[in-house]
Amino acid sequence: MSQQVYEESLQLHRQKVGKLGTIALLPVKNKEDLSLLYTPGVAEPCRAIARNKEESFKLTSRGRTVAVISDGSAVLGLGNIGPEASLPVMEGKALLMKEFAGVDAVPIAINTQDTAEIIKFVTQIAPSFVGINLEDISAPRCFEVEAALQDLGITVFHDDQHGTAIVVTAALHNAARVVGKKFEDLKVVVVGAGAAGLSIANMLLGIELTVTGCQKVANVPRVKDLILVDSKSAIHQGRTDLDRYKKCIAEHSNKTKKSGSLAEVIQGADVIIGVSKAGIITSEMVSSMAPKAIVFAMANPEPEIMPELAKAAGAAVVATGRSDFNNQINNVLAFPGVFRAVIDGRLPRITTAMKHAAAVAIAKMVENPTAEKIIPDPFEPNVAKVVSEAILLAIN
Amino acid sequence: MSQQVYEESLQLHRQKVGKLGTIALLPVKNKEDLSLLYTPGVAEPCRAIARNKEESFKLTSRGRTVAVISDGSAVLGLGNIGPEASLPVMEGKALLMKEFAGVDAVPIAINTQDTAEIIKFVTQIAPSFVGINLEDISAPRCFEVEAALQDLGITVFHDDQHGTAIVVTAALHNAARVVGKKFEDLKVVVVGAGAAGLSIANMLLGIELTVTGCQKVANVPRVKDLILVDSKSAIHQGRTDLDRYKKCIAEHSNKTKKSGSLAEVIQGADVIIGVSKAGIITSEMVSSMAPKAIVFAMANPEPEIMPELAKAAGAAVVATGRSDFNNQINNVLAFPGVFRAVIDGRLPRITTAMKHAAAVAIAKMVENPTAEKIIPDPFEPNVAKVVSEAILLAIN
Repeated sequence: MSQQVYEESLQLHRQKVGKLGTIALLPVKNKEDLSLLYTPGVAEPCRAIARNKEESFKLTSRGRTVAVISDGSAVLGLGNIGPEASLPVMEGKALLMKEFAGVDAVPIAINTQDTAEIIKFVTQIAPSFVGINLEDISAPRCFEVEAALQDLGITVFHDDQHGTAIVVTAALHNAARVVGKKFEDLKVVVVGAGAAGLSIANMLLGIELTVTGCQKVANVPRVKDLILVDSKSAIHQGRTDLDRYKKCIAEHSNKTKKSGSLAEVIQGADVIIGVSKAGIITSEMVSSMAPKAIVFAMANPEPEIMPELAKAAGAAVVATGRSDFNNQINNVLAFPGVFRAVIDGRLPRITTAMKHAAAVAIAKMVENPTAEKIIPDPFEPNVAKVVSEAILLAIN
Repeated sequence: MSQQVYEESLQLHRQKVGKLGTIALLPVKNKEDLSLLYTPGVAEPCRAIARNKEESFKLTSRGRTVAVISDGSAVLGLGNIGPEASLPVMEGKALLMKEFAGVDAVPIAINTQDTAEIIKFVTQIAPSFVGINLEDISAPRCFEVEAALQDLGITVFHDDQHGTAIVVTAALHNAARVVGKKFEDLKVVVVGAGAAGLSIANMLLGIELTVTGCQKVANVPRVKDLILVDSKSAIHQGRTDLDRYKKCIAEHSNKTKKSGSLAEVIQGADVIIGVSKAGIITSEMVSSMAPKAIVFAMANPEPEIMPELAKAAGAAVVATGRSDFNNQINNVLAFPGVFRAVIDGRLPRITTAMKHAAAVAIAKMVENPTAEKIIPDPFEPNVAKVVSEAILLAIN
């Protein structure tokens, strides 16, 4: 990236002191307004909510407002830069919710990185919001935090996990179509076992995390097999160094119990999905894959392998996380519509079935997918609407 | 109050799902906007803040956004109705900040009423805001919460205490002028020892609460003497049933060590300030006060004594909390301007000197005070500006 985008961004952020503000939806111009919107009139909506808490979603901005919460522990590619420094990203996320889906969102960066404290904080703030977007919390703490909050009564959705997983799944549906393979026949390797990698693996395997590990979900699409590779090697049931989340993945993946490095397990795979770091996928590896290989190299800013190298090595479809190549896998395609659905449906959680419905809907927005176009552009009209409608139809 | 204001308020709150929303200050219309306001450009403001946290006040909405936080334990006259039911008031407060002072504010109602947990919660959320308005937290917990948070680095201001105290002090300056007495010569009785009563007493005595009790503040105006009356009797040093806040008041007030009921200690007083409940001040009590008595009867919705009764009993100046009588003592005169100053001056706290400066400035807005007009109307232009400028001039 050129230095210019950074300089310009800094100036833009300084210009109006951030990028999101509040607005009065009802005016307070005289004593009558004051008596209706504040005392004494305001006592009546208070009493209505005291009788039935659900009325808080209809009588206050809670009903349409989401919190974007981070502890600043895993911000973009910048790492553990703390809560204050994470604010431009959280505010950006809130801005995108507003601009892409009309969702009101409030950026909140908190001054603790203790897992139990984060869970308690979210529980304590829950009465103020219709949903919580967890953001940039490092793995594996993010899994524990999110799983512990699924019965809170409002949606708690860690976008780094599920937003990415939804868009990857959407892209994979169309990539499979382009190369003439069935989604359910795909043999997939995922390299990188952070929040995104684990969540992609879970979604493609049709399993979901719980407080104690994970569980298989009924009636969702599944790829044929998947191998998740962490910084050491392929994850399989024989490894003794796995945390409960990786252990659960091991139980549900890698049917042939392959061990070894990425270079070994990638041989014969239909799909490689990289959510790790620059340069980790080589031309030789891509050449060793099955014919018509699909390569998603999503490390930012430098992908695991550059698209031209992957193509030269035989890849049929290539996608990255970058806007300057074709097929940008960008979770802005998912999260605004997800929270639109959370608001419109007053959803207490986003299920795996809903995530798959969203992925299929995003994929279908591209009428005739080609190698250079497997995913819609975020600025195409109605992306959020399509996503939210698909999610609301998946309520069972 | 008529039933109509309640019905209308309920409809109005339902109409737009609350009354406050968010707004994008910078548009996201194309990939370039996205690259500047989100990735990759947003990394630069993140890095700038990581180097210097103070930049978060200049590069993110933190720099102009306040949180209005309540535990729902003492909401209006409704009592302990819980966090969800307190939201209409918190959102109303945030709306008034926007409408009267252009301050962005976010309503947050939290799901704990444990003092230590509230303190921890505010500490954890502090990196997201420039100031915290505590609201409707019951006494004496509100004193402990606020005192513990004064060194947080951002202003924590409990409006039920200080907003009320500022406006009462402003009104008292002008009432004294109307009756030809000097503020420093006044003998005051305050009835009601909740958040408002204690804070009014502290401000008029020139003392402020600390974590361990209270301390005398140098160079602020003081009335001659003050007696605080709680639900039992006058507070004096001989009582053994006082918490640390009342004990401290006892040390700095009631110079003649009077004990006894309100009816006893009000005799000969220049001023009675009621922040308790309807009907507690009788005509006989007012008649027993010094000539040209000042009566502030602020219980809501029914004052401690009705204005016409107080006047018939000899009161020279009467004020209430109600908009349908003259001289409404309404803390909307103070808090929007207070938080305007917090933002414009990046103030780490509001000092007692600042509160007195705000009170004097509000008083001076009424050029020629009369018995029927001792306090400006909240809709007079520039109230918030006058308050914030006075506070910023009081920085020492």
